[in-house]
Amino acid sequence: MNNNDLANSYIKLINSALEDYVQFTGDEEDRVTEAMLYSLKIGGKRVRPMLVLEFCRVCGGDVNLALPFACALEMIHTYSLIHDDLPCMDDDDFRRGMPSCHKKYDYATALLAGDGLLTLAFSVVSGAQLPSEKVVKAVKLLADCAGYRGMIGGQTMDLQHEGQSITVEQLRKTDALKTGKLIYAACVLGCIAASADEKAIEAAKIYAENIGLAFQIVDDVLDITSTAEELGKPIGSDESNGKSTYPALLGFEKSKALVAQLTDEAVAAVSVFGEKGAFLADYARKLSVRTK
Amino acid sequence: MNNNDLANSYIKLINSALEDYVQFTGDEEDRVTEAMLYSLKIGGKRVRPMLVLEFCRVCGGDVNLALPFACALEMIHTYSLIHDDLPCMDDDDFRRGMPSCHKKYDYATALLAGDGLLTLAFSVVSGAQLPSEKVVKAVKLLADCAGYRGMIGGQTMDLQHEGQSITVEQLRKTDALKTGKLIYAACVLGCIAASADEKAIEAAKIYAENIGLAFQIVDDVLDITSTAEELGKPIGSDESNGKSTYPALLGFEKSKALVAQLTDEAVAAVSVFGEKGAFLADYARKLSVRTK
Repeated sequence: MNNNDLANSYIKLINSALEDYVQFTGDEEDRVTEAMLYSLKIGGKRVRPMLVLEFCRVCGGDVNLALPFACALEMIHTYSLIHDDLPCMDDDDFRRGMPSCHKKYDYATALLAGDGLLTLAFSVVSGAQLPSEKVVKAVKLLADCAGYRGMIGGQTMDLQHEGQSITVEQLRKTDALKTGKLIYAACVLGCIAASADEKAIEAAKIYAENIGLAFQIVDDVLDITSTAEELGKPIGSDESNGKSTYPALLGFEKSKALVAQLTDEAVAAVSVFGEKGAFLADYARKLSVRTK
Repeated sequence: MNNNDLANSYIKLINSALEDYVQFTGDEEDRVTEAMLYSLKIGGKRVRPMLVLEFCRVCGGDVNLALPFACALEMIHTYSLIHDDLPCMDDDDFRRGMPSCHKKYDYATALLAGDGLLTLAFSVVSGAQLPSEKVVKAVKLLADCAGYRGMIGGQTMDLQHEGQSITVEQLRKTDALKTGKLIYAACVLGCIAASADEKAIEAAKIYAENIGLAFQIVDDVLDITSTAEELGKPIGSDESNGKSTYPALLGFEKSKALVAQLTDEAVAAVSVFGEKGAFLADYARKLSVRTK
């Protein structure tokens, strides 16, 4: 299977599993179920769940067994976007070209849909058909990476930086928490599902740290250079929200050079997997030159 | 130890463990940590974690091993209150006599503090020093009871009933999800921690269902009969929010009689524990006549 076919098969697997996990009762509480499913379905690149599945595969594991971890991560990512879009946060009316959850439904329903996806993620992880020790490890990793010392910590720092001038180091720490931790969780969860050895986990961590930061820098660049149509959400929102970004702090050229350097390091890290690592190397490069 | 001393020893244990779980880094993300701890500390009766510990004790388990489950439940309960108090939900400025989280901090920080507590709960459960199979069971029970088919489902129904006239059956289902599910989780988690047998778990479920509903009816009654000073939050908020309540649907006398009947059933259920069940019987009675 070539890399494109593999990516497409992963996306199919992920989308179908995500829909299966969200069950309707036919009763009044289905309003929040609908909102959860709406946001999951408008989801985009499925970067995090793909990384779970691919790291599982390159480490010799069964991709189907890693699927609950992959879906849980996508649920957590989706909940963070729903809450991030709320008026009290970034106040974004569009997400991936569609009305954001609170515009499609209402503020309270979007709040609860986010809470619901975060909670469902842990139910899904706990249902994985893997040895209990691994499942417990996965719950801990996921909760810690998504928590107040991980993603939520990064969102908190982000809020405090609004309208302030910050250093590249502060921005780097913020992004390492806000974006980096879930990508890190994705790569390591794939390894856990496959009972990978320490060498593989080490490679996964280095790969994750590098593509995680590169991913955020590309996001910042696209917020300035892309069009709203391409991106599916308003551009220039960082600037209007008074957010410090890599292009603003380092300039365009240096930002792009940094993305290239980080991508090279990610590619080098997965060379330990030999030919099997080709998808991950290719994927790091693709993410670095994406246009949305 | 008499029942009062036992309750006080539990509360001490719970409060001290809750504080230990919330760790500061000394960096910018501590703003959300502060908000999380603030809301945990203004916490009230610790009903849910007490039930975890006591069910563990009556089933012959080690209370200290059940402590992570107890604290996780209190974190989930606290997050639900933080989000419930937000302007887009009940818009309550006070909670237990203190400014609610978004008044003490701000809307965005309160949103993230709620998310942070919900996420931390699962990290805490996964750290329990119990066999992995039990921990996985606990994660699943907690996530399902707190999720969109549990507590969040109840909150969703609650929102949809605002300003509408509903039946007692609808109200009962709403409360069974919104309040009942976490109380159910509390009682059963205590049993899981103690490796209780089926008979004990069955008793825990019946006890939970009865005190859960009684608890909500008492809440509704207090919202009308209590003073704001006693309750530590504005009274009459159900009426001004257009919420259907038991007193409104059944009348005061019938509501009180129902509380008494449910309490009797709860007391009967824990008679299987013999003398050891005295605390739980007493606790059910105390909750039914509470004034705040």
